[in-house]
Amino acid sequence: MNPDAIRQSIHTALGKKPADLIITNGTLVNVFTAELLPGTDVAIKGNRFVAVGTIPSAARGNETRVIDADGAFLLPGFVETHTHIANVFRLHDFVRLVLPRGTTTVVTEVTELGNSLGLAGIQAFLAEARRQPMNIKVTAPCFSPPYPEMETVHPFSLADYETLFRDPDIVGVGEAYWPRIVNNPDQKTLELLSLAWQHHLPLQGHGAGARREKLNAFIAAGIASDHEPITAAEALERLRLGLFVMIREGSIRQDLEGVAAVKDMIRDFRRLSISTDGVTSSRLLNQGHLDVLGRKAVALGFDPVTTVQMLTLNAAAAFGFSDLGAIAPHFRADLQIVAHLEDFTPHTVIAGGRVAAERGKLTIAGEEYHYPLFACNSLNLDPLTAESFRYPANGSEVTVRAVRPDRQTMVTHEEIVTLPVENGNIRPVPEESILKYVVINRYGRQRLSRGFLAGTGIR
Amino acid sequence: MNPDAIRQSIHTALGKKPADLIITNGTLVNVFTAELLPGTDVAIKGNRFVAVGTIPSAARGNETRVIDADGAFLLPGFVETHTHIANVFRLHDFVRLVLPRGTTTVVTEVTELGNSLGLAGIQAFLAEARRQPMNIKVTAPCFSPPYPEMETVHPFSLADYETLFRDPDIVGVGEAYWPRIVNNPDQKTLELLSLAWQHHLPLQGHGAGARREKLNAFIAAGIASDHEPITAAEALERLRLGLFVMIREGSIRQDLEGVAAVKDMIRDFRRLSISTDGVTSSRLLNQGHLDVLGRKAVALGFDPVTTVQMLTLNAAAAFGFSDLGAIAPHFRADLQIVAHLEDFTPHTVIAGGRVAAERGKLTIAGEEYHYPLFACNSLNLDPLTAESFRYPANGSEVTVRAVRPDRQTMVTHEEIVTLPVENGNIRPVPEESILKYVVINRYGRQRLSRGFLAGTGIR
Repeated sequence: MNPDAIRQSIHTALGKKPADLIITNGTLVNVFTAELLPGTDVAIKGNRFVAVGTIPSAARGNETRVIDADGAFLLPGFVETHTHIANVFRLHDFVRLVLPRGTTTVVTEVTELGNSLGLAGIQAFLAEARRQPMNIKVTAPCFSPPYPEMETVHPFSLADYETLFRDPDIVGVGEAYWPRIVNNPDQKTLELLSLAWQHHLPLQGHGAGARREKLNAFIAAGIASDHEPITAAEALERLRLGLFVMIREGSIRQDLEGVAAVKDMIRDFRRLSISTDGVTSSRLLNQGHLDVLGRKAVALGFDPVTTVQMLTLNAAAAFGFSDLGAIAPHFRADLQIVAHLEDFTPHTVIAGGRVAAERGKLTIAGEEYHYPLFACNSLNLDPLTAESFRYPANGSEVTVRAVRPDRQTMVTHEEIVTLPVENGNIRPVPEESILKYVVINRYGRQRLSRGFLAGTGIR
Repeated sequence: MNPDAIRQSIHTALGKKPADLIITNGTLVNVFTAELLPGTDVAIKGNRFVAVGTIPSAARGNETRVIDADGAFLLPGFVETHTHIANVFRLHDFVRLVLPRGTTTVVTEVTELGNSLGLAGIQAFLAEARRQPMNIKVTAPCFSPPYPEMETVHPFSLADYETLFRDPDIVGVGEAYWPRIVNNPDQKTLELLSLAWQHHLPLQGHGAGARREKLNAFIAAGIASDHEPITAAEALERLRLGLFVMIREGSIRQDLEGVAAVKDMIRDFRRLSISTDGVTSSRLLNQGHLDVLGRKAVALGFDPVTTVQMLTLNAAAAFGFSDLGAIAPHFRADLQIVAHLEDFTPHTVIAGGRVAAERGKLTIAGEEYHYPLFACNSLNLDPLTAESFRYPANGSEVTVRAVRPDRQTMVTHEEIVTLPVENGNIRPVPEESILKYVVINRYGRQRLSRGFLAGTGIR
């Protein structure tokens, strides 16, 4: 906040200046005290709340927009702590789908973007993010590339990280896979962790399956969060060790049900939140975003106010955001008006002080952003011909190894399949969902990599 | 943490390196989940915890010190969030009195030091603080001088503040008196608030008596905490608005009893802590430090584990400390071993990974620090003679105004007293506790200021 904005906030709270927006007669879900407070008024100036409870009548000016909440619940906007947007959506599409559902802040990974477009690509994404009508923050990729021995992409230098860490929209370091941290970490990784620590940026963890001494070691390295527990016992072990636990419930996995029993094991929920870890467009369209998670948590027996805390203040705390995730003076004016608390369906969403959505429809738009040319011409492919996709073999049939992914566990298995050879080339059997796959290096620096895929259901 | 320290932490947690210190068989007070966990082991490397719960046997090396807690409670070291040390104690004396009682982190105001010695004085204090065997952090004075229209001290410039804010041991801005923020704040104050905000440094508040729209305005300016509520209603109003409330219980006032009823009004205590706001040496010697506050809180009906949270994790959260106030990997290794939880009397205190006190006695010392000469020669007095202290008057007696301070409310009242005149000078009546006072300007730039004091009990 600049000095003038601070002065405006003070004067509006006192009624010496008109508020931009006043919401009257709401039932405040107070995430600090875990209370429901009927008859609460809220005043907004610029992009911040300036007064809650007592609004001087003089703050209601001629230009002040007034919304009567008519007793409905006032919830802070939801905060998504762990997701992957950049490889699935253009931001304006994402915003259109999530903001009307009450999500006003998103922290997203950009590892894939870093891999394909490098530092400049992430900076372009940040430029696009700043033009959106909601609060979009980014974690710097922890390992870029994730597997340097398998990839040819130009790695990020510490100087690149330093550049990112000075950007106010970089709010942490993205998920670190625990074996990379725990099993003989390389010097560059340690230097990155140290640099992030110096910048007070929290390190996000990917601790799938880590336990006992390995989990201790992972956390001792400075890892602050984990979105990977899939049982109540795993969540409990992590919470006890001080990790911010983000229960994952999205398109990749749905872990809320498996983890829910943790609610009866602890007496303090401050480090527990819920995140999607990424959603497909069909899930967003047909089900929803964090609103779905809220409904499911309540259905599983979480207290409704605790559920709001998990989706707001607790989520903000995982990144040390001191002015996000609550309806209070000085906090970013992100709010949703919800008729039935446990329904989590806002009829009005306010983001950064502006009415952003009404009855499920976006009412404001961001600025358009055009990616620079380098980002649009990033595929440097070797010439591809029909020959590129052939898999030559002799005889009339061959026995080959195929990859069978398990959608539930995300683990891939080996499957031995027998395939016909036609005209000197192996033929896949799409009728049985045995497919040929080809991995094409976008940098044009390596040969194609080919194989067979089984059991996906794709024909 | 530097890269090597991170590597050491990881390897010790895994048992590839020996720990420096292991505590076995404690009953962990887990401040994240609010659980008591018997049979917990804890390992320390350097100044940090590296493992809790599972300690590989290989981490117990020949040089590893092992302390058997024998079932006693393991509490995080206490965190003092608001106090004034510099004008009462030399730090080594303070440390000697508080560290054996379980206080391992102190955040102190240095307003008085800033007034008398300026920026260089605060920097000298920081140098002394860094040499102590406990964690001492400092808030930059918010108003220096507090009342520029009444004082001649050289004010801090924004550049001075910028210098302070870059010091890692400056963790916030000290208490801002609410009328100075709310009633037409001057441009320099607003610029200071803005600068602190840019540096992510929390602003401490002094909101005595502020309520409703004035409290909103105070918080809207970015104030993050208040240690001034004296009733449960005041504490509740502040908690609901998102302030970190530090219940004051020290030498100036004892507010725990007056505020305690707030515990039955809220369901979430995360923003509630307890602090002294300053203690005299006699209180420290005869009663104690934060240990007293813990005992009193429990006696007043606070849950013992909640009480530990208020004195540790909640206190750390008020400053956004992400690695303080809990016993968990990566956290600063500050711990106390307490035989009876509600007694809060540690028989062993570990600070920054070292055994710092046993059975009430300090077992380690800080480095000695000698203040630079300018700090020792800071009184620039005009020549003082007997004449300086005379209060001439005619006649045999006079009626004068005296200042009567109220120790309970800290408010001063006017009292009209009649005093004898002897040899042409007014004579105080110490038998009736009517005293003469003289204020001497330490900069030698103004005349003496004199008056009379009544009702202090001093003779």
